[in-house]
Amino acid sequence: MGVIFYDLCGRDPNVRFSPYCWRARMALAHKGVRFETKPTAFTAIPGIESGASKTVPVISDNGRVVPDSFDIALYLDETHPAAPPLFSDKAAIAAGRFLESWAFQNVHSIVTRMVVKDIHDVLGETDQRYFRPSREARFGRPLEEHQTGVDANAEALRTALEPVRKTLARHEWLGGDAPRFADYIPFGALMWLRTIAGSVPLAPDDPVSGWFERCLDLHGGAARQAPVAKAA
Amino acid sequence: MGVIFYDLCGRDPNVRFSPYCWRARMALAHKGVRFETKPTAFTAIPGIESGASKTVPVISDNGRVVPDSFDIALYLDETHPAAPPLFSDKAAIAAGRFLESWAFQNVHSIVTRMVVKDIHDVLGETDQRYFRPSREARFGRPLEEHQTGVDANAEALRTALEPVRKTLARHEWLGGDAPRFADYIPFGALMWLRTIAGSVPLAPDDPVSGWFERCLDLHGGAARQAPVAKAA
Repeated sequence: MGVIFYDLCGRDPNVRFSPYCWRARMALAHKGVRFETKPTAFTAIPGIESGASKTVPVISDNGRVVPDSFDIALYLDETHPAAPPLFSDKAAIAAGRFLESWAFQNVHSIVTRMVVKDIHDVLGETDQRYFRPSREARFGRPLEEHQTGVDANAEALRTALEPVRKTLARHEWLGGDAPRFADYIPFGALMWLRTIAGSVPLAPDDPVSGWFERCLDLHGGAARQAPVAKAA
Repeated sequence: MGVIFYDLCGRDPNVRFSPYCWRARMALAHKGVRFETKPTAFTAIPGIESGASKTVPVISDNGRVVPDSFDIALYLDETHPAAPPLFSDKAAIAAGRFLESWAFQNVHSIVTRMVVKDIHDVLGETDQRYFRPSREARFGRPLEEHQTGVDANAEALRTALEPVRKTLARHEWLGGDAPRFADYIPFGALMWLRTIAGSVPLAPDDPVSGWFERCLDLHGGAARQAPVAKAA
């Protein structure tokens, strides 16, 4: 059987935009795990693995089901100790939790302002009927108002990424000398944006750009080759 | 000779409020280094160690002069490898750089809005004549306008500390199982506030409070015993 990876998809099953699924996908590739991907629509999540999770990513490793991108990374380090680590030690796990919360609070909110209506537009019709009311309840306004666009939020994104930039001024990776799960957390956020918007609004000489390009090249260029959504 | 530690002080030489000096002081204690503290006014910094640095902390280890709190921590790990590490590996150094930039961007700015005029008021007169124009030029307005107080900024501080809180929900320390330099970075910011304002505005059941109390108890309660500024 091997590992099955449930990855969020749009109307086009090849469009995979979830930041959390990108973290998990990079973690699987990092560990050299062979896996079969099952593109999964939002409204298909309750039907996978007997309703094991309300969210993706989920992996099933020969029947052992693990939801949640961070838990998947911890599971992979535990079950594949000989492969390069995602976390070098307990301190790195704690640092990863910090990054996870930081990204949610400081980066995901901005990406949402950039493209949440565009995310809606790449979904299948059934997913759109779930996505719009759930997100509009969260934001307290229509998607069309919450999304103010990539350009309007580009400076806020660049500012929010300052701690990433300052780290990369001294280290090749957020993980230090080698990519680690610490890299895949903000990388997932930028892949979310890239998949929906086609690119990320960073200057070519921004150290974050150089790092993003290095991440795109990792693991055989898996992320670079991933399809980008076509404009609606 | 041993180690000399130059620590920023107010008009009362026992009042030590600098967030960066608190990082260095905790790092020295963490490594079990015996040191002699030289309380140093802002305007006395150019005169220490032949003008080695424009800022404190600075340490002089038998004549080897090391400025900058982060560099001091790296130096101590290098020169005291048998003592508990401040950074467990290169990944922890990179994570520390991230935290350093995050704290500057997200926490220091809020503490400044809380107490910058009160900092001015605890300085000696010569320091006040340096501090006010340099800070007013940075903020573009009088200290009295930039400081909006502890209460007015308490909610912003609690929100900014969310990544610390989320990490501490799962780990005893930001460094994982043991305190590390990762802890001393935000701890320094809160000691800055505590020393000037007398306390930090966190709820007793906030995990950040519990961690702050644990930090106060570290190394023989060095930080807990540190004098707090008297109200002007």
